[in-house]
Amino acid sequence: MASFQLKGRRRVDYGFHQAYRTRWSDNDMYDHMNNSVYSFLFDSIINAYLIEHCGLRPPTSPQIGLVVNSHCDYFGSVGFPMTIDLGLRVNRLGNSSVAYEVGVFEQGKDDVRAVGGYTHVFVERGKNRPAVNGMSDEIRRGLKRLLIDGTPKL
Amino acid sequence: MASFQLKGRRRVDYGFHQAYRTRWSDNDMYDHMNNSVYSFLFDSIINAYLIEHCGLRPPTSPQIGLVVNSHCDYFGSVGFPMTIDLGLRVNRLGNSSVAYEVGVFEQGKDDVRAVGGYTHVFVERGKNRPAVNGMSDEIRRGLKRLLIDGTPKL
Amino acid sequence: MASFQLKGRRRVDYGFHQAYRTRWSDNDMYDHMNNSVYSFLFDSIINAYLIEHCGLRPPTSPQIGLVVNSHCDYFGSVGFPMTIDLGLRVNRLGNSSVAYEVGVFEQGKDDVRAVGGYTHVFVERGKNRPAVNGMSDEIRRGLKRLLIDGTPKL
Amino acid sequence: MASFQLKGRRRVDYGFHQAYRTRWSDNDMYDHMNNSVYSFLFDSIINAYLIEHCGLRPPTSPQIGLVVNSHCDYFGSVGFPMTIDLGLRVNRLGNSSVAYEVGVFEQGKDDVRAVGGYTHVFVERGKNRPAVNGMSDEIRRGLKRLLIDGTPKL
Repeated sequence: MASFQLKGRRRVDYGFHQAYRTRWSDNDMYDHMNNSVYSFLFDSIINAYLIEHCGLRPPTSPQIGLVVNSHCDYFGSVGFPMTIDLGLRVNRLGNSSVAYEVGVFEQGKDDVRAVGGYTHVFVERGKNRPAVNGMSDEIRRGLKRLLIDGTPKL
Repeated sequence: MASFQLKGRRRVDYGFHQAYRTRWSDNDMYDHMNNSVYSFLFDSIINAYLIEHCGLRPPTSPQIGLVVNSHCDYFGSVGFPMTIDLGLRVNRLGNSSVAYEVGVFEQGKDDVRAVGGYTHVFVERGKNRPAVNGMSDEIRRGLKRLLIDGTPKL
Repeated sequence: MASFQLKGRRRVDYGFHQAYRTRWSDNDMYDHMNNSVYSFLFDSIINAYLIEHCGLRPPTSPQIGLVVNSHCDYFGSVGFPMTIDLGLRVNRLGNSSVAYEVGVFEQGKDDVRAVGGYTHVFVERGKNRPAVNGMSDEIRRGLKRLLIDGTPKL
Repeated sequence: MASFQLKGRRRVDYGFHQAYRTRWSDNDMYDHMNNSVYSFLFDSIINAYLIEHCGLRPPTSPQIGLVVNSHCDYFGSVGFPMTIDLGLRVNRLGNSSVAYEVGVFEQGKDDVRAVGGYTHVFVERGKNRPAVNGMSDEIRRGLKRLLIDGTPKL
């Protein structure tokens, strides 16, 4: 999706929300949150959702998600010591893969500061290959609830 | 202070509190928060207090705090995706220096999981030496409110 | 560029190289380098090049680079305690903006493990807007040396 | 050991050495490496030594090291983009525990910039308690080579 369209994202475009307090070390020398830190936050809300709503147990689950690509568009800055609101949605749900999108907001403000995300491929632990039948039913059910139009896509 | 005494710390022993959501990357391979991450959290609550209650403006303030030593005792583990409660106190307030202590708690639990902190020496920006009259009045007033017995010490 | 083409990148496709030792905290619970850490490495080789070859002085330079978008494709894993070889190239050089690409290799191996990068817009410090004449000559000269076909585009 | 004594440490006081390239994100707003980052480096050289010389396999080893306390004294600053030399020694080797010390040097300079470390207690994986016979022979043999006077201490 084009950058100018993502810039119009609002909190209501996302189905799962978490607030994260920023940390001193998030800011770089330019007194704003370093671009790399956004991906730590994406990883956090995505894995929190997988743990809380899809049954993921990182140390033992038979399937784990591998990140195959990631991206982010930055529209404005955030920084320590503010609190950040994140919103999560699923843009595409395949047989073994899922494309997440995360919106980044400053608490109390409406305009989105960044929109990014990544694609997970769920693989069998230790084999690093997708299962024959794709992601487990429990993971699929959980992710489907965040799928933006409610119908699974290829 | 001996480790066994610090293990008895409770939330009420601290004068300033903040909650931090953990992040996926905080956990290391042993599925608990890596020991190094605690110091990021200490840095965060201490600088948040300095900004909100002592007038610190990191990019421009005439005085900044340099860390001269740091320490931590670990009594139990915390980890993603839990939320962590931090408490901050000042154990010693000198002419230019201050010794902070931070307690780490799991949200909803009483036993302290770690107690650590560091010593700041406030120096003139660019000179890296304390001012002749020590830390500014605004910083001192703010820190004094967290001093544990209310009287400044050498 | 399509992911399958990027997968063919070799060290010789990049004009500037640095080796980075991985750190214990780079690995996440799945015993490989967390996807977010790649962007810290991209930031590092890019800013090292800007400092060493383009005259950037992060605390004082009149122009600084803001990241407006970032991306990464992951083809294979790396992880602590290996050393990682990074290669940097410039794919596009505009009036105020530059698109960097970084290749990630395991030391001693030929196949690229990840290819990513980001776009910098150089802005006037404090204004957050590009200068009328775009990026400074010193920055442009330095970046042009990494431009893949040697001729500025856009 | 008193801070003024640690300030006299030289490279020759350490038995195992590694060089780490700093990263952009290591620097905080004051343009030097953030104090918290030192502990990531300590973790890295210590675990690298355990993996390369003591047989540690983090995902599967029957014993793992838990950090029970940590400390650091800071004597001077380091920062991106310099390369840092680390030295590692063992100050105390107990039945299940080991106290490491790490010296931090700027490449090409003699004066130590920071001295810190932590204490590991080796526990049985999953039980979080030391084994009846303490740390494994393989770990002990490896650590003993870094013990500063060559004789195990309580």
